[in-house]
Amino acid sequence: MVLGKVIGSVVATQKDESLVGKKLMLVKAIDLEGNLLEPFVVAVDVVGVGIGEKVLVVNGSSARMTDETRERSIDSVIVAKVDSINIS
Amino acid sequence: MVLGKVIGSVVATQKDESLVGKKLMLVKAIDLEGNLLEPFVVAVDVVGVGIGEKVLVVNGSSARMTDETRERSIDSVIVAKVDSINIS
Amino acid sequence: MVLGKVIGSVVATQKDESLVGKKLMLVKAIDLEGNLLEPFVVAVDVVGVGIGEKVLVVNGSSARMTDETRERSIDSVIVAKVDSINIS
Amino acid sequence: MVLGKVIGSVVATQKDESLVGKKLMLVKAIDLEGNLLEPFVVAVDVVGVGIGEKVLVVNGSSARMTDETRERSIDSVIVAKVDSINIS
Amino acid sequence: MVLGKVIGSVVATQKDESLVGKKLMLVKAIDLEGNLLEPFVVAVDVVGVGIGEKVLVVNGSSARMTDETRERSIDSVIVAKVDSINIS
Repeated sequence: MVLGKVIGSVVATQKDESLVGKKLMLVKAIDLEGNLLEPFVVAVDVVGVGIGEKVLVVNGSSARMTDETRERSIDSVIVAKVDSINIS
Repeated sequence: MVLGKVIGSVVATQKDESLVGKKLMLVKAIDLEGNLLEPFVVAVDVVGVGIGEKVLVVNGSSARMTDETRERSIDSVIVAKVDSINIS
Repeated sequence: MVLGKVIGSVVATQKDESLVGKKLMLVKAIDLEGNLLEPFVVAVDVVGVGIGEKVLVVNGSSARMTDETRERSIDSVIVAKVDSINIS
Repeated sequence: MVLGKVIGSVVATQKDESLVGKKLMLVKAIDLEGNLLEPFVVAVDVVGVGIGEKVLVVNGSSARMTDETRERSIDSVIVAKVDSINIS
Repeated sequence: MVLGKVIGSVVATQKDESLVGKKLMLVKAIDLEGNLLEPFVVAVDVVGVGIGEKVLVVNGSSARMTDETRERSIDSVIVAKVDSINIS
């Protein structure tokens, strides 16, 4: 899973039926201190996160293993809100 | 999903039957301001987009989860036309 | 598989049911001498590793082929603790 | 799909049965003007292309969706010979 | 498939049952002249290769399509020993 921060959202009316009713969030990768990195992805939110929150993103076929995304044309999904990052 | 802009198309006559009848579009990655980035991909259009439009591209096995691409040798598909990008 | 070192963990309460009860470890990529590299990933631990240990990480759909991760929305898993790296 | 140019081939006698009888071509990525880029891949040719031709390469699990590659240990396949690239 | 050279091996006692009895080889990417590049991967050897040999590596779900790796948590496999690279 990739660590990221929710920075916005995307609106798309004309789309494949796979995406109908899905919340499309903009997630930027972050480093371990929480600083924003360059890469970003548009991911479907299945846990209910808000702007500015740290999240875990699952990519690829595993992104279709949640109830909301199963067998849909979705390759990126927010699967968790991160409470804390613990470096030892 | 990856954010991109449609910049052209590809014509291929000699091809695997997976691709017969599919529209092959050139999509360049864009940043959050809509500026073109270097990476580009050839993606099958399943929503009907035009040149210059911002789109969402799904890659990998999830690209086969639309009605038009199912079980085909296709690893990149345009699944949505982007209306707006909202940064908070 | 990717070579990495466990450097910490992530706590997430609000998450998809795929991740319930899973240990989420922070793993940084390492070079062949064991030096930490920049990329890192959050991976589910299925073998019981500790902080500072060298591990092998499986990514993508193969990350769902362990008993603990099957059919879950997980794309990165620690599948082994590395005893030694032998360069010839 | 990735745009590339066929620059050579690979011979391998000792191999998994997945690859028996398959033509292994060297394909270098190209930019939109047809200039060779650094990355290259070894891809199975299922359409019959020649050296110097521009092609489309499918990677990942979708590379197994042609009749010649189904259920084989192949992650890269040439699915089309490119006739023209049209930038608008 | 990716072109690489076998440079060593990895020993791991504590591991997922997917990896039991599998030979874990260190493979470094090479360029077309055979020079070692930076990226490396730990791949399961299913064809019987030796240190210093040039090989083809299959990554992702296709790495599970050999008899030895089927349905295992393995995302990288050596599928061939390369006899020659022919650039035209």
